[in-house]
Amino acid sequence: MEIKVMHQIMEWNEDVSEQVKAELAEHHICLINVMGSPGAGKTSLIVRLIEAMRSRWRIGVIEGDIAGQIDAEKIDAMGIPVVQLDTDGACHIEAESIRHILPHFDLDALDILFVENIGNLVCPAEFNIGESFRLALLSIPEGDDKVPKYPLMFSTSDAIIMNKYDMLPYFDFDDGRVERDAKGVNPNAAVFRVSPRTGQGLDELLPWLEARIEAARQS
Amino acid sequence: MEIKVMHQIMEWNEDVSEQVKAELAEHHICLINVMGSPGAGKTSLIVRLIEAMRSRWRIGVIEGDIAGQIDAEKIDAMGIPVVQLDTDGACHIEAESIRHILPHFDLDALDILFVENIGNLVCPAEFNIGESFRLALLSIPEGDDKVPKYPLMFSTSDAIIMNKYDMLPYFDFDDGRVERDAKGVNPNAAVFRVSPRTGQGLDELLPWLEARIEAARQS
Repeated sequence: MEIKVMHQIMEWNEDVSEQVKAELAEHHICLINVMGSPGAGKTSLIVRLIEAMRSRWRIGVIEGDIAGQIDAEKIDAMGIPVVQLDTDGACHIEAESIRHILPHFDLDALDILFVENIGNLVCPAEFNIGESFRLALLSIPEGDDKVPKYPLMFSTSDAIIMNKYDMLPYFDFDDGRVERDAKGVNPNAAVFRVSPRTGQGLDELLPWLEARIEAARQS
Repeated sequence: MEIKVMHQIMEWNEDVSEQVKAELAEHHICLINVMGSPGAGKTSLIVRLIEAMRSRWRIGVIEGDIAGQIDAEKIDAMGIPVVQLDTDGACHIEAESIRHILPHFDLDALDILFVENIGNLVCPAEFNIGESFRLALLSIPEGDDKVPKYPLMFSTSDAIIMNKYDMLPYFDFDDGRVERDAKGVNPNAAVFRVSPRTGQGLDELLPWLEARIEAARQS
């Protein structure tokens, strides 16, 4: 019975994600689904990317959290339009929630919408929320064995970002292994090594992101 | 519809968890449900606890993973009975899986059964797997804001363990804040600061654990 219902929900989610995609396309907005474990540095990376890209693009953020609004407050303090999505215990975001939230933004005044998904390497990967593309974060302290352990997350993402890369000297983390594992499950994924704290690796990530954003906004 | 089905599954899970509890009680086995994010150090802590306690207790492990058996191989290499539970994509363990696995152990030759749950701060907290008690791990690199963000995990656990505590100097992590937040949502929880790598904090955690294990085995 569980499997049957899951299937129904997924089909329903696909319909809604197509509606979200259509609405975003009408306004030439690129939606970036940012996923990773609790504490992988999702908010810190989004903050860094906003700083680097806000002179060129008009950016908004949807902050998904199970409870509280700590992250939304950080984005709001930057003067960036942000909506808090409180999932009230749920472990992922679905397209239906995005559909309800979109009218709270001035869509004609946005080029990019970041969605910070719930901190979770499992469930968010199952749900298309109408995104243009997906970023999967794996932070150095989490360990280098995570790609084979959470294959759906890394196989469905467009870029795999080794985050908090400045922490590499303090952990037993083989970044070559992660890159090999990532390419193994997802040969088309881009792989980056980034530190939001030091800025390391942004010079590689940003051009890739900007090309993807331009392509998404024109599609 | 989703909520209704969830409710049915939970009721069903409660029935099964009572069956698991009864079977464990018959054999005087304490089941410890170990939960935390991907990379929080669940396996490393279990390995350390086995090393510290194996002369006194007979220990078995159920290693929950979405895919692969990296962790089970580590436990097996220690000569400890271990069963790999591959959830095949599912984000948590349910009591029904534990019920199916128990016959694979020689239950008369066990005092403690560790269950390493799926790396996930959300879904595992919703499911009673027949445990005697729960340990919730929060590793220092994940950040000190996680208790209010994942309240169910920390409010339903018997001990909250700040893991990888030796990493404190390298991160902006206020352990006093975590302890206050933890006591706020869960006044009865024990709070520990532990490093499986250096052994720091085991002198406090072990006596607490052993008292809980003794009580569980006699109940």
